[in-house]
Amino acid sequence: MAKPAAPGLRIRRFAAGEWTESPDAVVTEEPLQLLLDGEPLAVVMRTPGADIELALGLLYAEGVVRSIDDVRGIRISAEAGEAENGIGVEPVLVESNHVDVRLGAKPRRKPVRSMLASSACGVCGTQMIEDLRRDLAVLPAGPQVDPAMLPGLVDVLRSGQGVFERTGGLHAAGLFDTGGHLVALREDVGRHNAVDKVVGRMLLDGRLPAAGMILVVSGRAGYEIVQKSIGAGIPVLAAVGAPSSLAVALAREFGQTLVGFLRGDRFNAYSNDERLTKALI
Amino acid sequence: MAKPAAPGLRIRRFAAGEWTESPDAVVTEEPLQLLLDGEPLAVVMRTPGADIELALGLLYAEGVVRSIDDVRGIRISAEAGEAENGIGVEPVLVESNHVDVRLGAKPRRKPVRSMLASSACGVCGTQMIEDLRRDLAVLPAGPQVDPAMLPGLVDVLRSGQGVFERTGGLHAAGLFDTGGHLVALREDVGRHNAVDKVVGRMLLDGRLPAAGMILVVSGRAGYEIVQKSIGAGIPVLAAVGAPSSLAVALAREFGQTLVGFLRGDRFNAYSNDERLTKALI
Repeated sequence: MAKPAAPGLRIRRFAAGEWTESPDAVVTEEPLQLLLDGEPLAVVMRTPGADIELALGLLYAEGVVRSIDDVRGIRISAEAGEAENGIGVEPVLVESNHVDVRLGAKPRRKPVRSMLASSACGVCGTQMIEDLRRDLAVLPAGPQVDPAMLPGLVDVLRSGQGVFERTGGLHAAGLFDTGGHLVALREDVGRHNAVDKVVGRMLLDGRLPAAGMILVVSGRAGYEIVQKSIGAGIPVLAAVGAPSSLAVALAREFGQTLVGFLRGDRFNAYSNDERLTKALI
Repeated sequence: MAKPAAPGLRIRRFAAGEWTESPDAVVTEEPLQLLLDGEPLAVVMRTPGADIELALGLLYAEGVVRSIDDVRGIRISAEAGEAENGIGVEPVLVESNHVDVRLGAKPRRKPVRSMLASSACGVCGTQMIEDLRRDLAVLPAGPQVDPAMLPGLVDVLRSGQGVFERTGGLHAAGLFDTGGHLVALREDVGRHNAVDKVVGRMLLDGRLPAAGMILVVSGRAGYEIVQKSIGAGIPVLAAVGAPSSLAVALAREFGQTLVGFLRGDRFNAYSNDERLTKALI
């Protein structure tokens, strides 16, 4: 079963010159072996739980899987205790921390991009965005989002984050509709994994591309987060932390609304802020 | 030359229901093509600047380079404008964002571990720490560190972080001696890169293993940060953020003092806190 927080650990706390000893909880980080049709593909450090979503989200980001119909079945370590409706999940693997995605046909493309840190660089410098044009489509216009609603979404993210409260060690990604209703919330020790899990959930539910959705992430918005969310068709990405230069360039190129420093009653809009107008009802 | 912050960007700020427009600086994130003896090895997303240190720190963490004597020379994009004393650096590569490390002999081992997200997993589950025993040595006892000194090191880190102040988007890693004096401070959009740059600096200066040193990092302490710092022989690792379960397990196994939540006048000690006693002078 999911083990988002490791069991009680004895630690010592130092405060104002004094030591005390007490139990503590830390976030669980474990390697996941991802296989494709039985062949080892990658090892991902992640917080256990939602391993099927994580595997599918990663494969979607790599362009290996484009629809749940591409997946014939999934074999997963019995101890994970995961199942999905509408897709064959066999809890069969002997080892722990393994998930094997079986494809119905040949993969649409070899997984090479971010997951298997690509060793050769057509991507360097200004070439990178050019190359991504082959994989990513410019997002269509809309939806309209009330800007005053955005800050409140962080509160929803935080209140849904049980493990973060206890460990301070988890990143969260939350997908919302334009009414501000939570569609999916996932946590992970890795920022990218939390986004992959959300995208994997949408893939399982046949809801990709996630047009009309807002993705809120607890950390920074780097290049990969923007790339993954554009790939999933998400028109608005809002980060509690700072964006990077490449994140801004990518969002502007592909028409995504990128928001950063979403804190208190404020935020910065780095691209395509025409979506951030109160809808006329 | 180093471009830690991208030049002025026009953005819109939303606060308390009102929009304003203003210039902004965001942290620079660009891909670096790393080559080994002219062969593409990996692409790393990083903040430009200290690319030689980053490349060497990465190769050290992978066990490819163990000493600066292993390096015959370095070829780097002319625009980087980087040079090092005591090592042949040729600013010859035509493309930008490239660094090519030339080895004097065959690499000691094939780079496989974290840099090239390894695709097969001897590392899964409890096997991981077992496997690391082949690569990492248990740290020797000492030094003694005054625990009351640790919180102040974060202030030094912050005050040395010029770009962070402006962009809020950079991670920092600072190496200190037991007297609390700063030995090296490096920033990067990636947490791991900041540590690799510091380790690369120590490699260039012939100061590895960094016994008697304290590494302070601005973010969380995950598995890879602990692994890299143990590999560099750093006995005390202190993080502003939370540690993960695997980070704690690894630190305990290899005798590293792991501190987390280093904030204000307090912190938590997760392992080997016997080093955190005021030295008897």
